[in-house]
Amino acid sequence: MEDKPTIYLDHAATSWPKAPGVGKVMLEMIDRPIGSSGRGSHGMALTAAKQLFSTRVLLAELFHISNPNDVIFTSNTTEALNLAIKGWLKPGDHVMATMVEHNSVRRPLEYLRRTQGIKVDYVPVSPSGKIDLEKMQQNFRSNTSLVVCSHSSNLLGSIAPVQEISQLAHDHGAVLLLDAAQTAGNWPIDVEKLGVDMLAFPGHKGLLGPQGTGGLYISPKIDLVPLLHGGTGSQSEELEQSAVRPDRYEAGTANTVGIAGLREGVRYILEQGPEKIYQYEWELTQHLMQKLSGIAGVTLLGPEIGKPRTGLVSFVLEDRDASEVAFLLDKNYGIAVRAGYHCTPLGHMTAGTMAGGAVRASVSYNTVVDEVDALVLAIKRITE
Amino acid sequence: MEDKPTIYLDHAATSWPKAPGVGKVMLEMIDRPIGSSGRGSHGMALTAAKQLFSTRVLLAELFHISNPNDVIFTSNTTEALNLAIKGWLKPGDHVMATMVEHNSVRRPLEYLRRTQGIKVDYVPVSPSGKIDLEKMQQNFRSNTSLVVCSHSSNLLGSIAPVQEISQLAHDHGAVLLLDAAQTAGNWPIDVEKLGVDMLAFPGHKGLLGPQGTGGLYISPKIDLVPLLHGGTGSQSEELEQSAVRPDRYEAGTANTVGIAGLREGVRYILEQGPEKIYQYEWELTQHLMQKLSGIAGVTLLGPEIGKPRTGLVSFVLEDRDASEVAFLLDKNYGIAVRAGYHCTPLGHMTAGTMAGGAVRASVSYNTVVDEVDALVLAIKRITE
Repeated sequence: MEDKPTIYLDHAATSWPKAPGVGKVMLEMIDRPIGSSGRGSHGMALTAAKQLFSTRVLLAELFHISNPNDVIFTSNTTEALNLAIKGWLKPGDHVMATMVEHNSVRRPLEYLRRTQGIKVDYVPVSPSGKIDLEKMQQNFRSNTSLVVCSHSSNLLGSIAPVQEISQLAHDHGAVLLLDAAQTAGNWPIDVEKLGVDMLAFPGHKGLLGPQGTGGLYISPKIDLVPLLHGGTGSQSEELEQSAVRPDRYEAGTANTVGIAGLREGVRYILEQGPEKIYQYEWELTQHLMQKLSGIAGVTLLGPEIGKPRTGLVSFVLEDRDASEVAFLLDKNYGIAVRAGYHCTPLGHMTAGTMAGGAVRASVSYNTVVDEVDALVLAIKRITE
Repeated sequence: MEDKPTIYLDHAATSWPKAPGVGKVMLEMIDRPIGSSGRGSHGMALTAAKQLFSTRVLLAELFHISNPNDVIFTSNTTEALNLAIKGWLKPGDHVMATMVEHNSVRRPLEYLRRTQGIKVDYVPVSPSGKIDLEKMQQNFRSNTSLVVCSHSSNLLGSIAPVQEISQLAHDHGAVLLLDAAQTAGNWPIDVEKLGVDMLAFPGHKGLLGPQGTGGLYISPKIDLVPLLHGGTGSQSEELEQSAVRPDRYEAGTANTVGIAGLREGVRYILEQGPEKIYQYEWELTQHLMQKLSGIAGVTLLGPEIGKPRTGLVSFVLEDRDASEVAFLLDKNYGIAVRAGYHCTPLGHMTAGTMAGGAVRASVSYNTVVDEVDALVLAIKRITE
């Protein structure tokens, strides 16, 4: 049953299929002798180290990071955000986030609010996804040390004006942490040009790599308290965690297999170019929105037709619970979408969809227009 | 060069080859549509959830854990130990560890000592690996809340008397965290019988699974502060991390691919039985020790011949730096061993090998006696 042909429109949760070569290189890393990076100087340990470094190099190229060792591998975006937030904030600090943050930002912040007395403001966002920058500007305090911002809302698909936000943050002596969960791979990101101080990204979404991978870019100007303390294979005799990157933030044996797979994903993205991928996905979402907006009882969320948005479209059907719609799509039409709160109750408060949640359809560079049309047809039938 | 045939004797760092079927199932998880566990109710998300649960079930069987949801996946043992140590200790607590702990225990403890005012005692261990239980008993204080213990020293191969230590811990109102980095898969572990409250284990060593996997068993009596806060796909609307296991400790998208591979490793271990694996590895180490002890200038570390030990043998060559020996073994004989401090300077203080480090050769269930003999011959040549 689970292997029946599925029209997969849940790429904002995890992408499938992965980039060409991802599975092949991962299998090689299992079948071929690799050691543990940094543990031992023998050939096999060096093979492992080479996997990690070559992936860092490609990620640095993609995000315009000058030193690959400023790219830290984590097991997912959540770990990257936890490292950034918990490693940077000090008791009493003030932090600003937005009203479309994912729970992977909101929950660490709320945890620190409860336990460390940090202060948090969530800047209002309009239902179409526009962040209230005036309000943000007014909210800065002398102790504002961090601005965290979802690059693209995982509910609305709206895109944050990063350059303006980083300017505001820097003008007020704060640093910017960008959550690129929905933009890494399908939107051009230049950390230098945008003024991004920390960039959290998943490996298994837009980068078309395997689950279990992700990372955090940390500007060389920033020093974080590591999330994990432990062995790195270097400076074993020291009591404290190494100050050298990437060791400082990567204690324990790395996910060599997954990271090698991620490299093939990033390689593919670099070949295609994030601009081209964005354009392709954007055209699909525009097509989908146009068709859906012609169906009575369908309300679209986020930026209006014609405006920039990442490859996802959320919508609500009149008098229908979102989970019911997703259930019908799965069972009767073989279409996989996501329903519910998408780990962003903040986003739903913003969109006014806290009651029944929303249905989210999301595309990738591999999605074809027929799949989108199949969804439209199914929604038509369901509403009839 | 890196792919030249290697005699791999560094299984204590990471095992190779992996169990049959590990690579195959991982490739399936890439090539076949899987979603993200807990994200969406469609078939693909359920496929992902099933991978995680079936692996939990086998791990629970292996370690005699009654509820599979008490098994938490982490990316390695280091993350498991950080979760246990940082999630359990409160400012002012006293903790006891031993003088053979790995840096993945020592560094989190030292970090909490510096920042949270916790007190740490490292119980002395004899050069052969015997933990001074009398001293441990004397060291308990009214605020001792945790005993952390390496199940088997990754330098000496000695095995801790877990039942006695857990008895001592429980008698004094503390809980026991066992670091099974060197014993999971090759030594029978029954958390109920042994009285282990938390068990940290790697997926890529004795369990013959992929790098990037590991886990922590947490007794249902214990509640930890999560290391990661974020989305779990469940109870999205709550500000606080879910109280339900495993979600509470597994925020973010799981390493579905790696965990599916780990399942095949655990399945193989269950088929063979940890007792049989231990016996096989023990016989190899005894053979190695007997041969090495006949070479002039070689000093063996850890338990003497005939005594229990896990599948590793560390040794020192008179007037030779360990890294030099490892280098020669790799370059001239194609033999991969580990030299240096093995992330356990404490262990080296115990063994008296802080000056030049030690050479560590470690075997697995896949090692054959010819490989061990090749090492012996090479060491003979090097000492001549």
